[in-house]
Amino acid sequence: MPIIDLNSDVGESFGNWEMGDDAAVFESVSSANVACGFHAGDPSVIAQTCRDAVAAGVTIGAHVGYRDLAGFGRRFLDCSPTELADDVLYQLGALQALAQHAGADIQYVKPHGALYNTIVHHEHHAQAVIDAIRAFNKELPVLLLPGAIALDKAADAGMHGVSEAFADRNYNPDGTLVSRREPNAVIHDADQVTANMIRLATEGTIIAIDGSEIPMNAESICVHGDTPGAVAMARAVRAGLEEAGVSIQSFV
Amino acid sequence: MPIIDLNSDVGESFGNWEMGDDAAVFESVSSANVACGFHAGDPSVIAQTCRDAVAAGVTIGAHVGYRDLAGFGRRFLDCSPTELADDVLYQLGALQALAQHAGADIQYVKPHGALYNTIVHHEHHAQAVIDAIRAFNKELPVLLLPGAIALDKAADAGMHGVSEAFADRNYNPDGTLVSRREPNAVIHDADQVTANMIRLATEGTIIAIDGSEIPMNAESICVHGDTPGAVAMARAVRAGLEEAGVSIQSFV
Amino acid sequence: MPIIDLNSDVGESFGNWEMGDDAAVFESVSSANVACGFHAGDPSVIAQTCRDAVAAGVTIGAHVGYRDLAGFGRRFLDCSPTELADDVLYQLGALQALAQHAGADIQYVKPHGALYNTIVHHEHHAQAVIDAIRAFNKELPVLLLPGAIALDKAADAGMHGVSEAFADRNYNPDGTLVSRREPNAVIHDADQVTANMIRLATEGTIIAIDGSEIPMNAESICVHGDTPGAVAMARAVRAGLEEAGVSIQSFV
Amino acid sequence: MPIIDLNSDVGESFGNWEMGDDAAVFESVSSANVACGFHAGDPSVIAQTCRDAVAAGVTIGAHVGYRDLAGFGRRFLDCSPTELADDVLYQLGALQALAQHAGADIQYVKPHGALYNTIVHHEHHAQAVIDAIRAFNKELPVLLLPGAIALDKAADAGMHGVSEAFADRNYNPDGTLVSRREPNAVIHDADQVTANMIRLATEGTIIAIDGSEIPMNAESICVHGDTPGAVAMARAVRAGLEEAGVSIQSFV
Repeated sequence: MPIIDLNSDVGESFGNWEMGDDAAVFESVSSANVACGFHAGDPSVIAQTCRDAVAAGVTIGAHVGYRDLAGFGRRFLDCSPTELADDVLYQLGALQALAQHAGADIQYVKPHGALYNTIVHHEHHAQAVIDAIRAFNKELPVLLLPGAIALDKAADAGMHGVSEAFADRNYNPDGTLVSRREPNAVIHDADQVTANMIRLATEGTIIAIDGSEIPMNAESICVHGDTPGAVAMARAVRAGLEEAGVSIQSFV
Repeated sequence: MPIIDLNSDVGESFGNWEMGDDAAVFESVSSANVACGFHAGDPSVIAQTCRDAVAAGVTIGAHVGYRDLAGFGRRFLDCSPTELADDVLYQLGALQALAQHAGADIQYVKPHGALYNTIVHHEHHAQAVIDAIRAFNKELPVLLLPGAIALDKAADAGMHGVSEAFADRNYNPDGTLVSRREPNAVIHDADQVTANMIRLATEGTIIAIDGSEIPMNAESICVHGDTPGAVAMARAVRAGLEEAGVSIQSFV
Repeated sequence: MPIIDLNSDVGESFGNWEMGDDAAVFESVSSANVACGFHAGDPSVIAQTCRDAVAAGVTIGAHVGYRDLAGFGRRFLDCSPTELADDVLYQLGALQALAQHAGADIQYVKPHGALYNTIVHHEHHAQAVIDAIRAFNKELPVLLLPGAIALDKAADAGMHGVSEAFADRNYNPDGTLVSRREPNAVIHDADQVTANMIRLATEGTIIAIDGSEIPMNAESICVHGDTPGAVAMARAVRAGLEEAGVSIQSFV
Repeated sequence: MPIIDLNSDVGESFGNWEMGDDAAVFESVSSANVACGFHAGDPSVIAQTCRDAVAAGVTIGAHVGYRDLAGFGRRFLDCSPTELADDVLYQLGALQALAQHAGADIQYVKPHGALYNTIVHHEHHAQAVIDAIRAFNKELPVLLLPGAIALDKAADAGMHGVSEAFADRNYNPDGTLVSRREPNAVIHDADQVTANMIRLATEGTIIAIDGSEIPMNAESICVHGDTPGAVAMARAVRAGLEEAGVSIQSFV
């Protein structure tokens, strides 16, 4: 029976500001990327999110980011590797305390936003993130973009990097993502998305933007929960995978 | 051989701003109250402070505070008990991750500034702080002002509250601190301070502001390191205690 | 022809977090309380809000608050009067620059949240707020709760305090608000709210919770825009007032 | 009589953290770059700094920076040009309100830290800074590094860009600064620094690192006040210039 993980971002409310339909997300995914307070998520939001994840039987991952609330962690911040490693370790510890109080543990790490994209290519930030995770718990898998330099750093450190696919994104024939600057970067048709993810889970391939079938090595699929359309898409993907006989399970 | 603990605040620098002579403090104290990022201390400052504490053989305590960098945690913030408990738990986890990476653990908790003073009398905030510490690790002692309602909350929770004395403060005959609004609230004479602390450690009494000798139940003495005068005072107190045959040891 | 002002909070989004249906609010009110960055509103949100207010012909007021993003300015912060006055003046200047760039000026001030409620009774914070506004522009009216000590401070400074009524709140027979801890603190029936506000605008009275008609001296009516229900209520109040021949105009 | 301006950073304390000997700086400079709260300076610090500048007869400039307290504005932040322009305008307004209350006005702008260095080459951020200053007051001169692209943007906007020299830095024969990664980037000898600045003020030249005399077009000299050595250097430069018959005057 084929297995795949579904992951999504949760816990991104802050104070009086709400974001995302986390309750709906928890019904669809096997892994929840929980904000740690640096790009989103205050301690009470995080605590409640951890309790909800535990109640839903969803695996908790640490969604660590740059220290930039005003930019939601979506802006590159040219901090030193030492600052970055310490910031990541601080976030991991903070989330772990709240997760433990909810009866769980951090079981993986996914860098967020600009940090996620930066460590695809930025050697020093990639190393800093891996160093911090290793310092915290070297057994934790790290969810990354296929091809990210941080995957190499994880491997060098004897750690487990996990590649993920993006349910609603088009891919180039070489396996890279179609840039968001291009038309058709995003697939809006739920049926097409679902069919593509079933193919990924059962055959290890997807259909690229030119119609060719290409290999795609991914242990997890990223879905979203920040709009009603995204929630519906996530539900459709899960339902389609289950109907196709795929088991939705966390990669941990 | 009489035993007493000396504690002081450290790790209160932030980014480009330095505060306190932590290196000097580590030579004088047995317990270091390490800032956790909410009133002071960024992750890199905290990480370095933990390494320095370990190198100096000083016990690490978590100096948790209100979320108020601009006010250095010295302003009462009327947050809800839930917010406060979650904020404290977040800080404990964050510090623990950095302390562990330095080879140590949080071994006690001391509330900081306005939080310390508020939970002398504020039932809900006192309960919230104790709840958070219990959720993190109920074995951790909590350093508090004698008479604080938080001491009762700790006892109710089966936890260990630790009373501390202030080396450079005058006491009323009833054992309360002379208010800082009064003249003579602070003792500036190092010899007088040292003599008082030797009496505390060896006889369990101090000389109150009216000259009477009163009982003082304290397992720790708070000294400061934020001015050259404070550092010299801390050194004098330690030297005086050791000359008087008192062993300086953490209460943990 | 009777005249009344309608005011509501706007510009309370922050970074990636959206709050309130400002576009709908601008269709209903004559005065917009624009967040200044300390409780909500980042500079780009504020800039856009000012442009929208100008386009809608709505008067811009400065919605100044305590420095507490995580608490949305709804938590009392025991800052010193000097800190508070400087914080308020800083916010006024920041908003003014962005308003001017949009072709407008701050035309009044309304303290937000916990600050609004605190200066009903807190002498020093009330004085600090009035001092800051006077320092910025002593011609600016200040929107306050009837009976607030800050109204006295404004009068003492030769400034113009403006009392407001709350459209959806029940009043005690003595003219004070029914506490939110009581049942029936909030009126949910749009017809009842509208009738009450027409009576206020045309006769200077409202019906208190016990059914008695009481005098109510208010130059402005506060409505909300943070939920679809609130937006509908604001529209109903405006429509009802206009049908009753009341002119909706800012008090400035 | 030759004229030159001396500028330095002030107002960089924050809350309980002090930085720099501003009182000493005010004795030496004609222009003070006042932090605006985004990289340093809380409203009370800024207010006091403005009063001190007025008392000392020193011109107030706005030292605007990236929104990054933890990094002291020394880390590039990849914000959008719109965010940057709004952030700068917000800071200008905030400082202006506090300066006005002290009896003065912002009379020039100097970007701080990473922003200063970024707009030497970053077209969009350079344009955003110039746009914001023009929106605020297009008469304000902008203090920049010679050769900065922001100087061109200022000229294009019909504004006045002002080039500055760095008193304690060595220059390459082509007029660029010797990189801080090179030995001899900084000149520590006060006599050499003073002689160089006298030559600059009187002859429009300096001695480059290879001993050659090169033209240097600068209307202001940047000195520092963050260490006792820097303060002494600033005093020496001022004394030397005055002895050499140079008038120290702001460029505004």
